[in-house]
Parts: sequence; C-alpha cells; structure tokens
Amino acid sequence: MYIIVVGCGKMGGFIANTLSRKEMDVVVIDVNEKSFSELSTDFSGFQIEGDALETEILRRAKIEQADLLLVLTDDDNVNLTVAQVGKHVFKVPHTIARVFDPRREVIFQRLGIDTICPTRLSAQKILDTLEQIKKDNK
Amino acid sequence: MYIIVVGCGKMGGFIANTLSRKEMDVVVIDVNEKSFSELSTDFSGFQIEGDALETEILRRAKIEQADLLLVLTDDDNVNLTVAQVGKHVFKVPHTIARVFDPRREVIFQRLGIDTICPTRLSAQKILDTLEQIKKDNK
Repeated sequence: MYIIVVGCGKMGGFIANTLSRKEMDVVVIDVNEKSFSELSTDFSGFQIEGDALETEILRRAKIEQADLLLVLTDDDNVNLTVAQVGKHVFKVPHTIARVFDPRREVIFQRLGIDTICPTRLSAQKILDTLEQIKKDNK
Repeated sequence: MYIIVVGCGKMGGFIANTLSRKEMDVVVIDVNEKSFSELSTDFSGFQIEGDALETEILRRAKIEQADLLLVLTDDDNVNLTVAQVGKHVFKVPHTIARVFDPRREVIFQRLGIDTICPTRLSAQKILDTLEQIKKDNK
C-alpha cells in the first residue's frame, strides 16, 4: 500500500506514524516544515514541504501511484479541494478527507468524497458510553 | 440523565446538541459567550458563561447532581484539571475528558480519568478502512 498523507498536524502526524509502523509506504505533505516534528524518530516514510493545493507538489509525491490519499489538514476547504483533485484529476482509488465541522460532512459526501469526522466519531463514542451507563444503572 | 458539557466549540456544541435531541438534561459551560452560537435553535439545555476551572462555576451548573461530566475544551491541561475536580472533589459518577494529543492519553488514564481521543478514534477508523480495502483487492 502506498499512502499519501496531506497535513502533518496532531492527526496527520499520528496517523502517518501509525501507518509507517504497520510497514506501509507513506509520504507526508505539509506547508510548514515544523509540522514534521510530529513524526516519530522511527517514521520510515518521506516528507514533502509544500502546498498540496499545487498539483506539482502532489506529482512530486507520486500521486499517480497512490493507493490511498488521506487529506487531514485543519482546513475543511483545503481538505475538500485536495480530495477532489486526488479523486477526479489523479484518479486515486481511495480518498478520505477529514471534516472538521460535522455539518459540512454531507456536502463532502454529495461530492463523492469519503470523509472522516473526528467530532462525529467522538459523539458516537460518547453515546455508546451513555447506553452502557444506562444498562449498568438498571 | 443530567449531563454537564464543558467547552462549547465544534465538538462540545455538536455533542450538546446531540444529547439535547435525545431528551437528556444538558448544561453547557464555556468561557466565551460567542461559543454558544454552536448550539442549535432547538437546544433545550442551559448555558453558563464562565471558567470551569473555578469551582463556583461548576457549582452553579449543579455539578453535585450530574450523572456525567464531559470536558471537551481544546486545551488538554484544562480538560485534565476539570475532569479531576469533577471526579475527585464533586464525585461525579462518570467523567470523560477529551484528549487532543494522543500521546497524553496514557497520562490521563493513569490518573483514573476516562478519555476520548478524536485523533485515535480517527486513526482506528482509517486502519479499519485500510483492512477493508485490502480485503476488497484480494
């Protein structure tokens, strides 16, 4: 599996480290070189400093060969745009974009972009915990 | 169920709305009044503007009666502190703190605080998706 991760903040960095430890080929792109400090010392992938909104940067990351594009920056608009370019221009087989604002998730999905919404996942986890508490209280 | 939500950002607001729609009693605390704009028009709970690090604010939210305290601000240190006060000082039966940085999750757990880490949940979801992709490719 060849995976491109766009955005090396807390989430992108953590996920890139996790994938690298599972012996997948990972390239991380971030506009800010300092963000790469999120990568652990055993991270075995490549880092590219640049703006993933520029197709030249995506090409440098060999996006034509990617099996999966993960777009995980803090900016929903960037995520939507890069994911669409990956899916429709470079025909990456699988593209997942992070959605910060859960209310926008439906917009992404209407545009055919698979999403990951940490807020919604967390809300679901809390609801599951509540169900468990209710059961335990009975 | 009586639930206190500390922090009304994207996550706190979304979760407070979700719980309110499920007909639970919800009080939301935030230092910044503007944050309450995250609450939907049908939110049926109470809002308290104030700093949850002050026990007076927690008392005003009737923390002694709470079944669940959710501490969901963007600041891990605030979350850890408020969760500990809720658990150990006010003996709230269930306390869950958001952890922004996955590397700190173990510290929270060692202090007996239940955690929710959106980044870790998202990473797990992505790994599950990868497993599915691998299966589909076979």
